[in-house]
Amino acid sequence: YKIAVLPGDGIGVEIVPEAVKVLQVIGEKFNHQFEYTEALVGGEAYDATGHPLPDDTLKICRQSDAVLLGAIGGPKWEQLPVHLRPEVGALLPLRKELGLYANLRPCFLFPGLTHASTLKEETIAGVDLIVLRELTGGLYFGEKSRQEVEGGIKATDVLSYTTFEIERIVRYAYEVARKRRNKLCSVDKANVIETSRLWRETVMELAKEYPDVETTHMYVDNCAMQLIRNPKQFDVIVTENMFGDILTDEASMLTGSIGMLPSASIGGKVGMYEPSHGSAPDIAGQNKANPLATILSAAMMLRYSFNLEKEAVIVEQAVSKAVAEGYRTPDIMEDGSKPVGTVEMGDVV
Amino acid sequence: YKIAVLPGDGIGVEIVPEAVKVLQVIGEKFNHQFEYTEALVGGEAYDATGHPLPDDTLKICRQSDAVLLGAIGGPKWEQLPVHLRPEVGALLPLRKELGLYANLRPCFLFPGLTHASTLKEETIAGVDLIVLRELTGGLYFGEKSRQEVEGGIKATDVLSYTTFEIERIVRYAYEVARKRRNKLCSVDKANVIETSRLWRETVMELAKEYPDVETTHMYVDNCAMQLIRNPKQFDVIVTENMFGDILTDEASMLTGSIGMLPSASIGGKVGMYEPSHGSAPDIAGQNKANPLATILSAAMMLRYSFNLEKEAVIVEQAVSKAVAEGYRTPDIMEDGSKPVGTVEMGDVV
Ligand SMILES: CC(C)[C@H](C(=O)O)[C@@H](O)C(=O)O
Ligand SMILES: CC(C)[C@H](C(=O)O)[C@@H](O)C(=O)O
Repeated sequence: YKIAVLPGDGIGVEIVPEAVKVLQVIGEKFNHQFEYTEALVGGEAYDATGHPLPDDTLKICRQSDAVLLGAIGGPKWEQLPVHLRPEVGALLPLRKELGLYANLRPCFLFPGLTHASTLKEETIAGVDLIVLRELTGGLYFGEKSRQEVEGGIKATDVLSYTTFEIERIVRYAYEVARKRRNKLCSVDKANVIETSRLWRETVMELAKEYPDVETTHMYVDNCAMQLIRNPKQFDVIVTENMFGDILTDEASMLTGSIGMLPSASIGGKVGMYEPSHGSAPDIAGQNKANPLATILSAAMMLRYSFNLEKEAVIVEQAVSKAVAEGYRTPDIMEDGSKPVGTVEMGDVV
Repeated sequence: YKIAVLPGDGIGVEIVPEAVKVLQVIGEKFNHQFEYTEALVGGEAYDATGHPLPDDTLKICRQSDAVLLGAIGGPKWEQLPVHLRPEVGALLPLRKELGLYANLRPCFLFPGLTHASTLKEETIAGVDLIVLRELTGGLYFGEKSRQEVEGGIKATDVLSYTTFEIERIVRYAYEVARKRRNKLCSVDKANVIETSRLWRETVMELAKEYPDVETTHMYVDNCAMQLIRNPKQFDVIVTENMFGDILTDEASMLTGSIGMLPSASIGGKVGMYEPSHGSAPDIAGQNKANPLATILSAAMMLRYSFNLEKEAVIVEQAVSKAVAEGYRTPDIMEDGSKPVGTVEMGDVV
């Protein structure tokens, strides 16, 4: 299995090696050969080559079976022209070029970590949901323009979706729901915008093909409430790009430990796996970062890109066990637990 | 003071009279004359006239100094063609026609009601923020279209903002911040969309005119997280229409009692005041609805439309006192409190 390894910026260079460490053990135990090719991305790529996504990096990704990404961005590169900033210059083109139309962000609570959330234990205990966010359409990739108008400037973004784009992500969501608790909640703003109306109509059509899955529709504003009021009502949520961006970040707070949440972006030949959190420049280089989200992202890689379900589960169980045994990086620290750094946590897993 | 009274649908017809009751007492005590004109809106207007916003209603609103709205919509009207549905056929045109570009949604916690939230007490105790949502621009009012494409349909919404539209809401937000704790957080997605870039540039320019106010910028996804992680960091939040729709609903959950949260929509000659919650058809007609959000909306009317600050504060204090003395409608009920219905709660206040 060929893996493109893109540590990126900030804590990325610390957490990615821990995930590779875990993959190595899996490889040895189960006789798989993982071949790693490291490449530059984000701010460090910009510093070295003048662009946050060098051609070489994209080529290496395309030639791999999966991409393991750390994190990108940081204050150092925030003043660059938009198209050269790590997020817009590297992350969005990577998604588009690799055809990663489905972003999967699971949100679940590790027993023993309920204290980390700002929500009450009875609200979050047992939360286990996954958001499927459309990742290559909508406002993110629509035409952008400015024009002079009387007394100022008018800026415009275009939000479009085709039935094709909606169908493929929603079908994928149904397949995911079938492997879980058979509940799909499609989130839109069909009472106001046209793309959402097409979205809802398309979901209603597809629902007929999945009678075994319970389909519901929810407005995005209501969903933003319901995620806090009663998150246990959700199994699989499917939504468009911008709504998904907002709702996944919100949902990540249910667990209180964004350092624990993995993500997978799939759809094309090559999947991309990265933690849900950012590059955390404030703690970079101090062996403080929590590598578990990245390790769990590697587990998702085993599952979704390599179809190695058993191996994926073993990694997930190892992470659960490390947490259950009380090992904690600073972000999830609590009284009476065993403090460890990034490297030690990787070793424990 | 001429007030257009639009009870609307569901519990609207129960809660609005309680707010009028309170206004009457204020009128008598302080020698103000409030003149009420009732008008049809929403589903009941559709049933009676064939349109959710009859011309007469709009005319009555225009000829008043302020509008007191209950709630509109319900399952009965959800299958109507979009332009005849209560929300899109009445609410959006009311906002646009009356020029209500600024929607104010305060979010604060009544002492004694912390138990109602799903968030931990230490996270929400002392929360006192207000969201200013732009209400007459953006995706809500952009051009909508559909076109046939290979293998399906493509739907499009246009998202536009002009410097003029951004400046007036942001200026308003600065004025609000000056009367509060002098902190303004502008929320956008400037790392991805063009309207947000113009939004941010415009705020950065205006910030120079308000050096006494601390201005910060936050991405909308991060804001959706921060509202749950640490809501006390916020004083005034200003944002565009769709982001505001999502974030205000999310923020309302901090208090756990959406039945307590008022809202004001202003900008033109006539302001509109309504509770943040909906028409709650499930409890309509049972004297169960909490009238406090509507009563607090009437207080906002006194403050923002009639400039009667002292009177507004007296209404707010009366509401606080009713809650402090233990009076509770079913939605905020707890052990040992005094259960009351809609009418009795109005009487107590
Ligand atoms: C960095 C940014 C462009 C990106 C997005 O908005 O998609 C991020 O917020 C995410 O969710 O991965
Ligand atoms: C009913 C709907 C059109 C409306 C909106 O989206 O503005 C509502 O959600 C609100 O926030 O007042």
